[in-house]
Amino acid sequence: MKTATILLTGFDPFGGETINPSWEAVRRLDGWTAPGLRVVAGLLPCEFGAARSALEALIERHRPQCLIAVGQAGKRAEISVERIAINVDDARIPDNAGRQPIDEPVMPGGPAAYFATLPIKAIVHGLRAAGIPAAVSQTAGTFVCNHVFYAAMHAAARRGGSLRAGFIHIPYLPEQAARHDGAPSLALDLVVQALQIAAQQSLGTEADLREGGGQID
Amino acid sequence: MKTATILLTGFDPFGGETINPSWEAVRRLDGWTAPGLRVVAGLLPCEFGAARSALEALIERHRPQCLIAVGQAGKRAEISVERIAINVDDARIPDNAGRQPIDEPVMPGGPAAYFATLPIKAIVHGLRAAGIPAAVSQTAGTFVCNHVFYAAMHAAARRGGSLRAGFIHIPYLPEQAARHDGAPSLALDLVVQALQIAAQQSLGTEADLREGGGQID
Amino acid sequence: MKTATILLTGFDPFGGETINPSWEAVRRLDGWTAPGLRVVAGLLPCEFGAARSALEALIERHRPQCLIAVGQAGKRAEISVERIAINVDDARIPDNAGRQPIDEPVMPGGPAAYFATLPIKAIVHGLRAAGIPAAVSQTAGTFVCNHVFYAAMHAAARRGGSLRAGFIHIPYLPEQAARHDGAPSLALDLVVQALQIAAQQSLGTEADLREGGGQID
Amino acid sequence: MKTATILLTGFDPFGGETINPSWEAVRRLDGWTAPGLRVVAGLLPCEFGAARSALEALIERHRPQCLIAVGQAGKRAEISVERIAINVDDARIPDNAGRQPIDEPVMPGGPAAYFATLPIKAIVHGLRAAGIPAAVSQTAGTFVCNHVFYAAMHAAARRGGSLRAGFIHIPYLPEQAARHDGAPSLALDLVVQALQIAAQQSLGTEADLREGGGQID
Repeated sequence: MKTATILLTGFDPFGGETINPSWEAVRRLDGWTAPGLRVVAGLLPCEFGAARSALEALIERHRPQCLIAVGQAGKRAEISVERIAINVDDARIPDNAGRQPIDEPVMPGGPAAYFATLPIKAIVHGLRAAGIPAAVSQTAGTFVCNHVFYAAMHAAARRGGSLRAGFIHIPYLPEQAARHDGAPSLALDLVVQALQIAAQQSLGTEADLREGGGQID
Repeated sequence: MKTATILLTGFDPFGGETINPSWEAVRRLDGWTAPGLRVVAGLLPCEFGAARSALEALIERHRPQCLIAVGQAGKRAEISVERIAINVDDARIPDNAGRQPIDEPVMPGGPAAYFATLPIKAIVHGLRAAGIPAAVSQTAGTFVCNHVFYAAMHAAARRGGSLRAGFIHIPYLPEQAARHDGAPSLALDLVVQALQIAAQQSLGTEADLREGGGQID
Repeated sequence: MKTATILLTGFDPFGGETINPSWEAVRRLDGWTAPGLRVVAGLLPCEFGAARSALEALIERHRPQCLIAVGQAGKRAEISVERIAINVDDARIPDNAGRQPIDEPVMPGGPAAYFATLPIKAIVHGLRAAGIPAAVSQTAGTFVCNHVFYAAMHAAARRGGSLRAGFIHIPYLPEQAARHDGAPSLALDLVVQALQIAAQQSLGTEADLREGGGQID
Repeated sequence: MKTATILLTGFDPFGGETINPSWEAVRRLDGWTAPGLRVVAGLLPCEFGAARSALEALIERHRPQCLIAVGQAGKRAEISVERIAINVDDARIPDNAGRQPIDEPVMPGGPAAYFATLPIKAIVHGLRAAGIPAAVSQTAGTFVCNHVFYAAMHAAARRGGSLRAGFIHIPYLPEQAARHDGAPSLALDLVVQALQIAAQQSLGTEADLREGGGQID
């Protein structure tokens, strides 16, 4: 059996934070191996456009079989496995380069959206079975996270079925939540473990589970 | 100037409720007119498939220039103007016919998503200016509301630019919230007024405003 | 039967708001009568100390049989009938006079807390029966609302059983919530109706209902 | 210097859970020592009355200088250091013995409330400085946690200044949150560390800090 390469990406800090839990977790998995897989970690700037270019360069360089982009979701309590990337940038705050696009397409002429091709239900199932809070999410927002997610799926679409891709949002670390009243958090060790499970589920699952992960409204 | 027809739809009650605020509000606007527009109200069953057929029949019968489908979002505090409909049914609870699809497409072979063609930013702007809590929403969920929203956009797409369409989620009425601990609500009068504003903005706005309405995560 | 006087108080706006829904509601009930009761409305400054003095002067002047102080609770979705006033001022923001006490007693030497003597369960029951979202609340916070609540109960305690008193927190009005993302609200008409019900329950209930209104944590 | 005894108590699981994070954390600290202090851990049943008797027996046996009762608060994201215990039992769900008191006093004839005598501001300050999410809480609810908190403060009051006491609410563990949609959690290691800090702050702080820890409403 060949060893598959899994590219995990994290982001620079943004929005006044000094760390980004996505990069803190992903960097710890750089070079991590499990039967049949090996992780490569990459850092993306929190900037529209530049993040997408950096992602495409990483894909070009590492030619992964699987790509899981990871980002911070400061109000969420769970590991959020994203279902769909949408073709719009609509920034509530400026990105790290000071740009704040409103209602611009991520990719002019691209489709309205792409579904993740990771087995999102199997990942959530595996995380919960391991005692890690997790849920499918129906929106990755409209900031740089969704921008990268869309770019990832666009790149995967051009490669046909050879690249499985998706996006996972993670909560603040406890040390970040300590400065935000009432914010939920997850410890770094748990997030790292969650990404290991997600990587393994992504390679080991042919057809995704048919388990509920929807939202009424 | 010709008078435009605006089709507003509401739903049957579901999820243990005895009323659905979407139909309560929409029915009160049946026949309502304002300069250049006339509202027709239609009731949809809260059932996958049947709701879509009923919607298509209403469009066929009334040939509206504008379609605003309205649904209940029991945990939201604001009028939520939906940005995007996605091609998936994933039901957390059975619909009113007992069906509970998981990860089935609304429309096999359809695109992953459609953006609303209503001027969503102008609607939110108009609502807030009138003192009504409102926001753009990045997900209409994966239940019958999103199902109808997707079907509406699909129907609009087949008609080219001649039908403007979208979806608005509304909170519980106070009398519903009185039976759900801590649930937010909006009074029926305010919701009716909100839909009047939405209808007028939808016809009176050529190009949508460029105002922020995004979400970081 | 003698007509009882019910004193309702509301507050000046604070925290950057231009209106305070408590005064908007209470002022509309000034002079309102129902069989056996008559309402007098009073306005309190949102200032530690001065609010208490103003309240005591109103009690002295009107000698009410019942006192319901009302205040704004911007994050709550329901009419909150407060259970207990505590003997501490701990201000997250300055009051309208610029004072920001931290861990000072409302009344040096006073008891740690007073329970409301309004029939709080009967009020919540009556509100819900009328279709108005309502709940017992276990904390009125530590800002000017709790300060006035404590002062009211202290005044009532000195009068023995002759003055029934308590505090009700109300949500933002919709026009306020329209400027606060995701904030819940209740319409002014509904709040006014809620205070009418509270006034009537307060006079008409001898012993409070034994209905659950607790909180696990 | 004499070594002070700190009694930490945790609870049995309740409300359908199979573990209680308070006991999981507290049991790991049984026998833990730091300069000048030694921890004794005690388990309390989640039952009105029986919990109070068990607590009083533990105080009698160990004669601690400091008592920190710990309980689970399943909806909270932070370590909640409680400010005040109130003299009421009002149970939303039955306790583990099937009892569900409504509006009964914890201690007939007792004062309406007791303030914690732990240095609550210093504890929150110390926790945040260590990167642990924490806040002062203005209510411990009206279930068995508040019951035990009140009983602890009552016992401390009878001993004059010789026993410092209070209550800390902790979130779910991640493995519990994995079964509750959207529930926040903290890892066990972090909670254990938090209790160590709380114990040290409780003994090492003469007069509490004057730092804000209030709540507007």
